[in-house]
Amino acid sequence: MNQESEYPNAAPRGRGRPRGSTTGSTRRKILKAATEEFSTVGFEAASIRSVARRAGVDSALVHHYFKDKTGLFLEALNMPVNPRELVAQAMTSPLGELGEALVRTVVTAWANPVIRPAATSLIRGMLSSQSATKLMQSFLQKELLARLGRSLPPADADRRAALAATQIIGMIIGRYIIQLEPLASMDDDEVVACIGPAVQWHLTGKMPS
Amino acid sequence: MNQESEYPNAAPRGRGRPRGSTTGSTRRKILKAATEEFSTVGFEAASIRSVARRAGVDSALVHHYFKDKTGLFLEALNMPVNPRELVAQAMTSPLGELGEALVRTVVTAWANPVIRPAATSLIRGMLSSQSATKLMQSFLQKELLARLGRSLPPADADRRAALAATQIIGMIIGRYIIQLEPLASMDDDEVVACIGPAVQWHLTGKMPS
Repeated sequence: MNQESEYPNAAPRGRGRPRGSTTGSTRRKILKAATEEFSTVGFEAASIRSVARRAGVDSALVHHYFKDKTGLFLEALNMPVNPRELVAQAMTSPLGELGEALVRTVVTAWANPVIRPAATSLIRGMLSSQSATKLMQSFLQKELLARLGRSLPPADADRRAALAATQIIGMIIGRYIIQLEPLASMDDDEVVACIGPAVQWHLTGKMPS
Repeated sequence: MNQESEYPNAAPRGRGRPRGSTTGSTRRKILKAATEEFSTVGFEAASIRSVARRAGVDSALVHHYFKDKTGLFLEALNMPVNPRELVAQAMTSPLGELGEALVRTVVTAWANPVIRPAATSLIRGMLSSQSATKLMQSFLQKELLARLGRSLPPADADRRAALAATQIIGMIIGRYIIQLEPLASMDDDEVVACIGPAVQWHLTGKMPS
């Protein structure tokens, strides 16, 4: 989980830039501490205060560089994009179109040549060990599913959010990681048209009692 | 990918069992060669003959111990169950019930305390690196999706099989690997009732043209 090497130079180094150099090393120190903290106690139990203590810096400095715990998490794990913002963006669609909107948001993000390789290796890493998966579980559950659930009919919100997530996760794994055909070669519109209705079914279709 | 240590004693060793001991070591030698062969050239291009050559044994011996290429693959990767047999079993159901039958087959296999940990670590391993994933891709495509496709309306068979696979893969990852709630705590009947219809949608529902 130590991804410090991914941030070799948060600020440029060199003569005449001593402040930049210090900033970079403080930032790296915080990210290293955050990676340890998240890996050890999980996303939910981790705190900015405790990360600051591990890094030997003031909490205010952590807030200054990373805003909040989620921002810190995203950077510590080298997330190329904030999934919470992606979900928020999809959720501007009406409930009856949310399935397609969620799939559209994911395939559009993945089509981005900067996001795609980073997201792919992040997902591989997150699934590779039990501790990494546990970390993702807590983030997914708190940051994405709970948020999605708030837009859904209250009675079954949690169940529907988790079921919709299975279809989206399976689409990501099948299309981008395993690259099953013809799914991997379809264009994005076709994927949205094929997977969207299945996600929508989980969100608003008939549920077994 | 070297899982030789998983087979410490295919046959019991000890005084008076020299033949058993030899059998075990030959078997291990073949499995080691098979792991190398599959990792290097992939499932599709691998051959019994080439594995035999790597192991320095006669092809007939490989057939004797492992029957065919699929049997060898399953054992080399330490697969706890033959997914081809699981799919074949589900496919005795009528087409209109195939979605539920496939999900039922998977959750029943995963409920088996011997299969579950082995299948979980197999899936983690297969997703962890590009070469391991590629190996699975070829097996999934050839052995499972193609077989499933043969039971489907021919026009869209390949697409439907891949789409159904995304929902089943997502269910496995979400329920057993990431353990999203409330999905992880649902009983098997509820999972079948919730995920089955989405799989069925992919198999027989309306397809975008």
